[in-house]
Amino acid sequence: MCEANAYFIKDGHEKVVMESVDILKPEDDGIYLENIFREGLKIRAHVKEMNLVDHRILLVED
Amino acid sequence: MCEANAYFIKDGHEKVVMESVDILKPEDDGIYLENIFREGLKIRAHVKEMNLVDHRILLVED
Repeated sequence: MCEANAYFIKDGHEKVVMESVDILKPEDDGIYLENIFREGLKIRAHVKEMNLVDHRILLVED
Repeated sequence: MCEANAYFIKDGHEKVVMESVDILKPEDDGIYLENIFREGLKIRAHVKEMNLVDHRILLVED
């Protein structure tokens, strides 16, 4: 499977906010993430960088 | 490999702008894409949705 893990970066530290992310959708008030188990999560953040081969999605606070 | 293809959507049509995308990085004036062959591309667009399991990155014009 080619899902990725989403990390939230704050003060130089990374925290996993969701593993096995399938869907990422920017919305007006943040980013919607959905994993392969169809769990959804909304986070007030934007994408800093994605590295798909490394399965990494880096998010930072809005 | 878990790279994805990036599609640009305009007037309801999809066009592949880059295959085998590894890195995606939003910048001030668009999105920087880099594929697994380390070719880089800048496009004036933003992410509409990503489906990692389907290897799809959908971009729309800014």
